[in-house]
Parts: sequence; structure tokens; C-alpha cells
Amino acid sequence: MGFGRFMTETMRLFDLAGAELDRRFSPYCWRIRLALAHKNLPVETIPWRFTEKEEIAPSGQTLVPVLVDGDQWIADSWTIANYLEDKYPNSPSLFGGPVGRSLSRHYSDIADGLVRAIFPFIVLDVLQHVAEKDRDYFRASREKRANARLETVVSDRDKRLPDFRASLASLRRTLKSQPFLGGDQPLYADYAVFGPFQWARCTSPYVLLEKDDPIRHWRDRLLDCFDGLGRETPAYDA
Amino acid sequence: MGFGRFMTETMRLFDLAGAELDRRFSPYCWRIRLALAHKNLPVETIPWRFTEKEEIAPSGQTLVPVLVDGDQWIADSWTIANYLEDKYPNSPSLFGGPVGRSLSRHYSDIADGLVRAIFPFIVLDVLQHVAEKDRDYFRASREKRANARLETVVSDRDKRLPDFRASLASLRRTLKSQPFLGGDQPLYADYAVFGPFQWARCTSPYVLLEKDDPIRHWRDRLLDCFDGLGRETPAYDA
Repeated sequence: MGFGRFMTETMRLFDLAGAELDRRFSPYCWRIRLALAHKNLPVETIPWRFTEKEEIAPSGQTLVPVLVDGDQWIADSWTIANYLEDKYPNSPSLFGGPVGRSLSRHYSDIADGLVRAIFPFIVLDVLQHVAEKDRDYFRASREKRANARLETVVSDRDKRLPDFRASLASLRRTLKSQPFLGGDQPLYADYAVFGPFQWARCTSPYVLLEKDDPIRHWRDRLLDCFDGLGRETPAYDA
Repeated sequence: MGFGRFMTETMRLFDLAGAELDRRFSPYCWRIRLALAHKNLPVETIPWRFTEKEEIAPSGQTLVPVLVDGDQWIADSWTIANYLEDKYPNSPSLFGGPVGRSLSRHYSDIADGLVRAIFPFIVLDVLQHVAEKDRDYFRASREKRANARLETVVSDRDKRLPDFRASLASLRRTLKSQPFLGGDQPLYADYAVFGPFQWARCTSPYVLLEKDDPIRHWRDRLLDCFDGLGRETPAYDA
């Protein structure tokens, strides 16, 4: 160990990976990948599969993202974002202050809602990219959640697409009036809402957003951030 | 005039009124009523009916809220909120700073989306409260917007209610975790999203929110703010 124990260790992030180790597709992990980049905090990502529950057991739960900072294990994306903001106050703020933090909370919940809304469009495509050893787990857990076969879940997606796109009207209107949810520069609110769209892009060729949708242009601006961090994973031009 | 021209005039707000002059039910005007109270700015509200377009002509458009501050006529709730924030910087902030202002924009758009979502539940009830001279205008303009008779628009509302309540899941989750969208205290984000629920409460006995819905508890907390300002209008216990 020597001096090592006194040096700042690089943080580690357990990051969901697909059959290919470099396909990182969790909507929740992407929030934290971008949050860490925003705060200029280096991180070592550890590819993780759904069934590797024991790897993250010290976090006290079974889902990623899990951040390991020294001897601290932190789970849940909103909790991690708050941890980073409090632990590294001299790095660029994710929230823009206490009021911004409170106002950002709802964006996190909006993002969770988007995961639920996008799920019935892409879940069968996600299955194709899940690691072999995760497939049975993924299918069983998602079919239980949906109470239906995954093939059935996605079968009417074309019919549902116009309603889904219409449901994004408020988001679209905001992103027509300003480049990012955080204003001229992105904030955690952006990274949270970006996550579900990045999840879709990394797993499914299905075109959720029309080419000229302001939401798509905003997504692409976020893909350009931090030297194109969001493009460092296999994805579809969808 | 005398000293009068050098004194600060009380601002005036054209505020949508129903058949009863004290029934103020515009979801957009309520945002500004609460914003003015938040900033401790006295205002004289002027009851206004849909067809009194000439009264607000100096604003250059035909909708309320319209705020008159000295010789300035300002329309559009988001524009008015920004005007108040900039013109009265020493009053309590509606946004909590520049970042909060950017993050608040989407709440304004969410609120507009809620008006569209609540419309097909209550529009026929709204008609019952519209001033006599406004009724033909209201019916014709809203039926044109809906491309259907108002009776038809609301006819299947019971069937649609579960989906509407489910669509509020993200808002509900946030308001379970903190008292207001702005955190411990309400901000413009709260007033904006409150507007559509207050509109419904002032015009319709239809129970959109279940009694134990955290969104309803939040609405009621906002009704208690500013000495119960939101309760100073006839309303239903809905």
C-alpha cells in the first residue's frame, strides 16, 4: 500500500453492459456517467451484468448504478448525484444550487417515467443485446413486470407510437425554447432525461423520435458533450 | 394628478371571471396571482370575460393574464413571471436564480400540457360557469379546438380517468418526496403546475384527484399559502 492509502483513489462505477462489454445501455447508469463527466471526476467503469448481484452486494441492494468512492458504496442514481454534489462542491454544480437541486428532483422522476413509457417499444430489442447469461433473468423479470410475453408487449408498438410522441409535447416545447433543460448549458436534469433516450439508442433500431424532433436535436447535443462520451458505446442511428 | 404621477401605482391584472365576478378560474391567471403574492406585490385584479378583447388590446393580443404595470402591458404567463422577476429583483425570487429560471421553464410547459389533459374532463362544467355573454364564444372556440361537441368530449371521462391519474405518476412521486416542486417552499414551478388543478377545482365537481393523492395534498398546501389566496374564489370540494 505505502502512500497509496493516502492518495485519492479513482472512483469506480458498476455500469450495465450487454453481450458486448462496451455496450453500456442502462438509462440510470448514463445519468451518472454524464454527471461524473460534468463534475470533471475521473471514473473507472466496471462492466456489470444483471445477474452479478454478488458483485454489488456491499451497496445493500441489487441494481446499478453503484458508485464506489474509497470505502463508500452508493446506489440509486438520484442518491449518487446528490452524493457527488455534496462530496465535490468545488467541481461544476450538477444542480446550480439548493433551489436547482429541489427543482431537479422532478426531472429525475420524469426520467423514470420515460423509462416506463419507452419499455414497451424496445424491450424485445434490449433482450437481443443482453449478455447470454442474463437472458433468462431479463426475460422472466420483465415479463413478470409487464404481465405478458415480451413479444406481445412490443407487438402493437407502431400503433402506439403517435401517442408516445404526443406525450412528449411539453418536453418538446421546452427544448424548442432553450438548448438544454438547464438553459444554455446542460445540468443533471438533462442527464436524467437523456438516459432513457440513450438506452433506446443503444439497444434498438426502432425510431422513437422523428429526425426533425427538437428532442432528438437536444439528445444529439448531449451526445456531443464531454468529447462525445455518449457516443463511446455501440448504438443505432435511431 | 399632483404627486400621484411620481408614486408607484398598484399593478393591475386582467383576471378571467365567470358568471359570478368572484369566480376566477383561469389556470394561467392563477400562476400570476400566486407569483405576485410570492413577490409581495400588491395587485388590483380586474374581472375580465373572454369576449372583452378590446379591454386588453394594448397588450397586442387577446388572452389573459395581462398585467399592467405603469405604462407597460405584459401578456403571457411565462413572460409576466420573467418580467416580475427582473423588474422586482429585491422581492423573493420566483426561480431561485438564473439556473432555477431555466429549470422552471419546463414546469411552465408541463402545466400547459396539464391544461390540455384536464380539458376533456371538465370543459362542459367550465361552460356552466362562463359568463352568459361568453357562452357562445366559449362553446364555438372549444368545439373547434376539440373538433367535437363538448358533450361528446366529456362523455367517456370516467373511462379515461384511470389513465389520466396514471399519467401523473412522475409528479406524484416527486411530491411524495418533497413538500413542493421548489423544495421546502413553493416557487413559480409550483404555481404553474397548480394552475390547471385550481382551474378544475373552481369549475367542476368532477373528482380528478383521489382524496389520498399526494398531488391533492400538495394542491391543498398551495391553497393554504398567502393567507389562503387560492381559496378566495368559489370552488368545489373536488
